Amino acid sequence: MDAPELERRLAEQETLLELGLALAETLDLRRVLTVALEKAEQFLAAETSSIWELDEASGELFFRVVRGRAAPEIENLRIPLGEGIVGSVAASGRAEVIVDVTADPRWIGDAARDFDTRAILAVPLVSRGRVIGVLQLLNPLEADGFTEDDLRRMRLFAGPVAHALENARLYARLQSTFVETVTAFADAVERRDPYTGGHLHRVVAYSLLLGNELGLPDHELDTLRLGATLHDIGKIGVPDGVLLKPGALDPPESEIMRRHTTDGAAIVSRIGSLRALVPIVRSHHERMDGHGYPDGLTGERIPLPARIVAVADTYDAMTTSRPYRRALLAEAAAQEIRRVTGSHLCPRVAGAFERLYGDGRFTTEQGTRLGDSLSARLDREYNRW
Amino acid sequence: MDAPELERRLAEQETLLELGLALAETLDLRRVLTVALEKAEQFLAAETSSIWELDEASGELFFRVVRGRAAPEIENLRIPLGEGIVGSVAASGRAEVIVDVTADPRWIGDAARDFDTRAILAVPLVSRGRVIGVLQLLNPLEADGFTEDDLRRMRLFAGPVAHALENARLYARLQSTFVETVTAFADAVERRDPYTGGHLHRVVAYSLLLGNELGLPDHELDTLRLGATLHDIGKIGVPDGVLLKPGALDPPESEIMRRHTTDGAAIVSRIGSLRALVPIVRSHHERMDGHGYPDGLTGERIPLPARIVAVADTYDAMTTSRPYRRALLAEAAAQEIRRVTGSHLCPRVAGAFERLYGDGRFTTEQGTRLGDSLSARLDREYNRW
Repeated sequence: MDAPELERRLAEQETLLELGLALAETLDLRRVLTVALEKAEQFLAAETSSIWELDEASGELFFRVVRGRAAPEIENLRIPLGEGIVGSVAASGRAEVIVDVTADPRWIGDAARDFDTRAILAVPLVSRGRVIGVLQLLNPLEADGFTEDDLRRMRLFAGPVAHALENARLYARLQSTFVETVTAFADAVERRDPYTGGHLHRVVAYSLLLGNELGLPDHELDTLRLGATLHDIGKIGVPDGVLLKPGALDPPESEIMRRHTTDGAAIVSRIGSLRALVPIVRSHHERMDGHGYPDGLTGERIPLPARIVAVADTYDAMTTSRPYRRALLAEAAAQEIRRVTGSHLCPRVAGAFERLYGDGRFTTEQGTRLGDSLSARLDREYNRW
Repeated sequence: MDAPELERRLAEQETLLELGLALAETLDLRRVLTVALEKAEQFLAAETSSIWELDEASGELFFRVVRGRAAPEIENLRIPLGEGIVGSVAASGRAEVIVDVTADPRWIGDAARDFDTRAILAVPLVSRGRVIGVLQLLNPLEADGFTEDDLRRMRLFAGPVAHALENARLYARLQSTFVETVTAFADAVERRDPYTGGHLHRVVAYSLLLGNELGLPDHELDTLRLGATLHDIGKIGVPDGVLLKPGALDPPESEIMRRHTTDGAAIVSRIGSLRALVPIVRSHHERMDGHGYPDGLTGERIPLPARIVAVADTYDAMTTSRPYRRALLAEAAAQEIRRVTGSHLCPRVAGAFERLYGDGRFTTEQGTRLGDSLSARLDREYNRW
């Protein structure tokens, strides 16, 4: 190689080293995907790029992320392994340059109506010896088609991307396994008390309604949802004799029962990604006047999500402790909430409750629907930004 | 730069790219450390190398790994931030070349008696903007001291190492949080039944004794320990009415109770690192004659660790159901184990039980001690290989 070629290679490797560092410094899936596509487009001067991920269970590639405009038509696309260009690159594990897609028999056309694909460069993403997806670049900005040299460079690029993607996937999977497992435990914990069947589900639904009425943004609603799910997780440490005691608790028993707030906070504080839930789990039994537990916080010092769960929890406890009088108790519970607003409950949250309750919108069904649409919004946001 | 220099740089960068790929392709802490030190010594031709990790809680650096001989003196060293050379590099965040350590006032001498440190190259490991440790090279093989150019190259090297180390740490932390949390739940689940207080702890201890007597290697004992801890985790899904029923279970109730094996297996199979536990959780109620559940496996088709837990579980269930007759029941339980060996229990495992029991070694204390020394061995193995 002559000096100019050596310098070109050196610059190219410097870019790759930087990319590798940028990708290695995070386990956040979204960040990995953004960095990968941003750098891929810069590195190869392409009009747009996308990453497809292989779902090993179904043998299909699903669309993970696209830069720039993402037509809704693309978002739900699933391509069987071996079909189309993306599918055949994933199946063969071989990168491909396609200069004119219209001449390729595998080309299935543009899914997005307002986009015109001319040329494709598709490389398999391989980590731990397995194809985990495909990185695809469309339409070079300054040429008709991608070159063999583009292909060589993209192969170098695909390694760090594949590993970072796999690491982020493994981390995300472990996190969601943790959350799922903890949620399953939360469900099991509440099922210990036959009088509270479905309590958790309803408290989550009511909390979401209240949070939404108070104008919380989506990611805070998401935190609120998980916090509400886990608010009583600390009860796993409460012995049967106390938890299931039919009558009133004596002072030592009360003390044990109250510990579920700090025990629960200890459980959720162990994991970084759940730390945002600690204030909810710890403080959902605080009172505005400072006579709550475990910290005796007053007023706005009680974190808002904890004040929200307190209202949801109070309402549900009152409306379900005697299931056969439920219809009657709804209004009685609303009255009781009014009575303890200011002393126990937060006036702002209680105001939101009043509006929802007055309009007949304070129902588990409405809350569940809200939760479903929140999940859909969060998924969409995740794939397109 | 002239062509030879460019070529040198290109080769250097190629090494760095390869290192980055090798480090990025794993989240296994041990593998990251091995690869990092192996490559560091090659890259800079040093006699030995070590990685020190910063424990943010205590503000001390602890020795993570050394290549080659690791004197026990080094293994337990903890260096306060700011002290010695490693401590001052971690505190300042600045890499250092020390040509003659004996002339450095911070030098605290060789901890390992049979090693003679002359020169040091120490670079901070920085990830996510924080110092997480120090990578240290000792004694260049082909020169008296490390050079400024060595320092430049080591700085480039430290980036991918720091990120990979931090990713592996985060992953390991999340995994151990998961295991800890699940273990805490397992404890809480068993505490639901007042008659089984301490059951889990004893089954773990007995299983370790049996596994050790059968000659299982350390890593299999480790799996056995966690599997024994979680063997009844599926009982979290068994309703109080069934779990706490004082009398015999009717057929539908039995059916529900039996489900704890498959429910438990479903929980542990969700997480990659716990998959080795599935056979234990699923099959600890199988019988040699095929009349067990959930799969009706026979003989050696029942995984050995499940057969071990079955003996431990049987013995403990019999010796603790009536605590006031425990001493008497130990011998009665041994008799019962002999009676059901071959039909229910595995003769090999029962043989191990006989030897331990006959020598008076089948006690919780012995098992707990064994567990402690296993942990110590695993920790040591982890730091030196």
